[in-house]
Amino acid sequence: MRWLIRLSFVGAAYCGWQKQINGVSVQEKVMDAVCAVFGGTERFSGCSRTDAGVHALDYCASFSVDRSMEPQRLISALNAHLPADIAVFSAVPVSEAFHARYDVKQKTYHYRIRTALFRSPFDEGRVWHRPGAADLSALNAAAKPLVGTHDFTSFMAAGSKITDAVRTVYDASFFPEKDGVVFSVSADGFLYHMVRIMVGTLTANGTTPEKIAAVLEGKDRSLAGVTAPACGLYLARVEY
Amino acid sequence: MRWLIRLSFVGAAYCGWQKQINGVSVQEKVMDAVCAVFGGTERFSGCSRTDAGVHALDYCASFSVDRSMEPQRLISALNAHLPADIAVFSAVPVSEAFHARYDVKQKTYHYRIRTALFRSPFDEGRVWHRPGAADLSALNAAAKPLVGTHDFTSFMAAGSKITDAVRTVYDASFFPEKDGVVFSVSADGFLYHMVRIMVGTLTANGTTPEKIAAVLEGKDRSLAGVTAPACGLYLARVEY
Repeated sequence: MRWLIRLSFVGAAYCGWQKQINGVSVQEKVMDAVCAVFGGTERFSGCSRTDAGVHALDYCASFSVDRSMEPQRLISALNAHLPADIAVFSAVPVSEAFHARYDVKQKTYHYRIRTALFRSPFDEGRVWHRPGAADLSALNAAAKPLVGTHDFTSFMAAGSKITDAVRTVYDASFFPEKDGVVFSVSADGFLYHMVRIMVGTLTANGTTPEKIAAVLEGKDRSLAGVTAPACGLYLARVEY
Repeated sequence: MRWLIRLSFVGAAYCGWQKQINGVSVQEKVMDAVCAVFGGTERFSGCSRTDAGVHALDYCASFSVDRSMEPQRLISALNAHLPADIAVFSAVPVSEAFHARYDVKQKTYHYRIRTALFRSPFDEGRVWHRPGAADLSALNAAAKPLVGTHDFTSFMAAGSKITDAVRTVYDASFFPEKDGVVFSVSADGFLYHMVRIMVGTLTANGTTPEKIAAVLEGKDRSLAGVTAPACGLYLARVEY
């Protein structure tokens, strides 16, 4: 039987989703839970890599096991074997051909920026603290040139081995939340550090739509801004 | 110079506000920060004791120091010396006679209950997880008899040494939040475990306004419900 599960996690304690020799990964915690419940699993796959410290509101994984189970029971059983900073909230049976990574149609990331003057203990490790008023309409205007099908080489970490940097961004916009703003970006795929470089570039002083368009056009990482810290980034929605 | 500071803290790592021989208190962290900035302090007082694991959105403390400072600078200096789970967000000069505990007119506590079926990693240690639909109008009806001036002996931890259990509750009501409800209660003062016993009693199966009135009237702790866990409780507002 093959499953698609959706989970959320606080990324602070992990080296990211992907299993690594050095560091504890979210993937190994979830695989351990599946193995604890079923005694083993095959064709286990996550929907994407994530950087160390990045969070997920909606991460997807698919896997096969050798017997069936009622979905609510599966969720409860997995949660009982997962640490407090990881929790499954949905489980749906899928076809044998389904693959959590290759079948993704669209992903949405959120990036939280705290603009209040002082830090909040409740947001610690969960936002990028950049004190100062945020001009939402200016930020939204600056984000607009990112929407569409472009070569995003300027927004890819230097040294990345990806050769085709063309992606389609469906939406890139800011919305307000208590004490800050959230950058939301949806695309058919993302390059290494793409959202974090977008945030670092869009929130730099004096950014205009013209400057962002010129950064895109230049296809050169050095034209863009800093890479915003991982702790503000959330994988927010995955669509198949 | 005498100050009133307001701070927020995540209580998970602390034995409560009050300094104790066994355990790390919020009070000692804040006093350490004040002493680091000013070299010493006098007549340092918090607005109330809090239980281990209880959080604060708005905790107040008053203290005297031997020189003046610009309020914004004081806040930044204290935050630089405080751990990540404690942060000051306001500082106001007060008269020499001011006392953070004795001068309190009204305090408001919030108690967060997560009603969603599954736990959330982001709410871990910050809510009481009670899966199942909450009937807000029934909860609000049940809370109504608590409002007013009453002897709250039934809602005081057994063994408490307080002899006068009469308090005035100005408001006791539930409001919705994402994936749960929040109980908000304002009063001129609170007894030991009072909010947590109220929550445990109000959320018990089959609670009615008549039953709550009878519990109050009985002046007997054993008539009330369980003490809800500390992790859902927040000191939310202090008024002078």
